Amino acid sequence: MLKFFYATNTCALASHIALEDSGAAYETVRVDFKSNEQRGAEYLKVNPKGRVPALVTDKGILTETPAILAFVAQSFPKAKIAPVDDPFAFARVQAFNSYLCSTVHVAHAHRVRGYRWADDEAAHESMRRKVPQSVGDCFTLIENEMFAGPWVMGADYTIADPYLFTLSSWLETDGVDPARFPKVNDHRQRMAERAAVKKVLAAEAA
Amino acid sequence: MLKFFYATNTCALASHIALEDSGAAYETVRVDFKSNEQRGAEYLKVNPKGRVPALVTDKGILTETPAILAFVAQSFPKAKIAPVDDPFAFARVQAFNSYLCSTVHVAHAHRVRGYRWADDEAAHESMRRKVPQSVGDCFTLIENEMFAGPWVMGADYTIADPYLFTLSSWLETDGVDPARFPKVNDHRQRMAERAAVKKVLAAEAA
Repeated sequence: MLKFFYATNTCALASHIALEDSGAAYETVRVDFKSNEQRGAEYLKVNPKGRVPALVTDKGILTETPAILAFVAQSFPKAKIAPVDDPFAFARVQAFNSYLCSTVHVAHAHRVRGYRWADDEAAHESMRRKVPQSVGDCFTLIENEMFAGPWVMGADYTIADPYLFTLSSWLETDGVDPARFPKVNDHRQRMAERAAVKKVLAAEAA
Repeated sequence: MLKFFYATNTCALASHIALEDSGAAYETVRVDFKSNEQRGAEYLKVNPKGRVPALVTDKGILTETPAILAFVAQSFPKAKIAPVDDPFAFARVQAFNSYLCSTVHVAHAHRVRGYRWADDEAAHESMRRKVPQSVGDCFTLIENEMFAGPWVMGADYTIADPYLFTLSSWLETDGVDPARFPKVNDHRQRMAERAAVKKVLAAEAA
C-alpha cells in the first residue's frame, strides 16, 4: 500500500487530496514540523531533503509535489485527474504545477523561510515585507492569464486543482485579499465543498 | 514545426538540448534579455510570465522547463530520453527536475534576481552573499543522495541530464567550486562532449 508522509499546513495537502481523488489505497504518516521531525534521522531516510511530501511506493520513494501529482494521475488513470494520454494537455497541467512550485510557493516561502536565502534578520524582514506584493502578482497572473475555469485547466478537474487550492488557501496569511481574484476565490470555495477535500482536511486536522 | 523561444545563459538551454536530443524538427527564436525583450508586448503574447523557455506547438504554447522536457520526451518516444512508459520511473525523473526548478534554480536566482523577493539593496546584497552556501548545499545533496551515475537517473540518459548540465554550468558564477562534486563535475564534462550539446551551445553562441 502507498504510504504518504505529510505535515499539516504544507503543500503536501495537494498530493493528499489527489491521492483521495485517485481512489488509491494509501495510509498516511504525519511529520511534526513543530518538533523539527523532518530534520530527524528517521525522516531523512525517507526524504534526504527534509521536506514533505514523500510517497513510499512498492518501487521506491517519490518526493516533490508536481512529480507525486503526475505519478498518482498516471498510476490511477480511471480517476481521470489528468489528461495522461495527451502529451500536450498533460504538459499544460505540468506547466501550471511547475509555476506553482517554482514561483508561487517560492514567493510565499519568503515570509517565514527567508533563512534559506539570507542570514540576517534585516534581510528576512525585507523579504517578509514584499510577500504580499510578490504573491499578489503571482495570483494576478493566475487569475488573468492562466485560470481557464471552471477548473484550472478548463472543463475537467485535474491535479492542478488541489495544488492551486492548497496555495490559494495561504493568501490571507500572506497578507493578500482573496477577493482581488474572483475566479481563484470561487475555485477555492468550490474545492472546499468537495467530499475528498473535506475528508482530507478533517484527517489532517484530527 | 515547433518554435522554441530561448535566451542565452538561461535555463532554456536544458529544453534546447532535449529538443536536439529528441530528433524533433524545430526552429529557434532568441529573446534578448539585455534589451529586456522578454518584457516587451510581443513576447508577452507568447509567455505572459515574461520568461524563457517557451515552446510554440501546433496545439498551443508551453512554458516551464520541467513541462517542456516531459512534453518533448513523451512526444518523441523513439529518442528514449525518459522512461515514458513507467509512471514510477518517469516520476523519479520529474522529481529530480522539480528539485532543480524549485530549489536549485531558485537558490541561484538570489544572486542577481533578488528584486523578486525584496526591495532594498542591503537585502539583495545579503542574498548574494548566501548563494555560494545555498547552491553548494543543493549540489552536495545532488552529489551524495540524488545522482545515480553515470547519468543522473542511472544507466540511461534522460531529460534530467541536460537540466542538471545547465544548472551545474552556473557553479563557478555562483562562487561554488565544481571540484567539490566529482560526480556532477564528471557529468558536466561528459555532457559537454555530446554532439547535441556542442551543436546547441554553438547555436546559442552564434
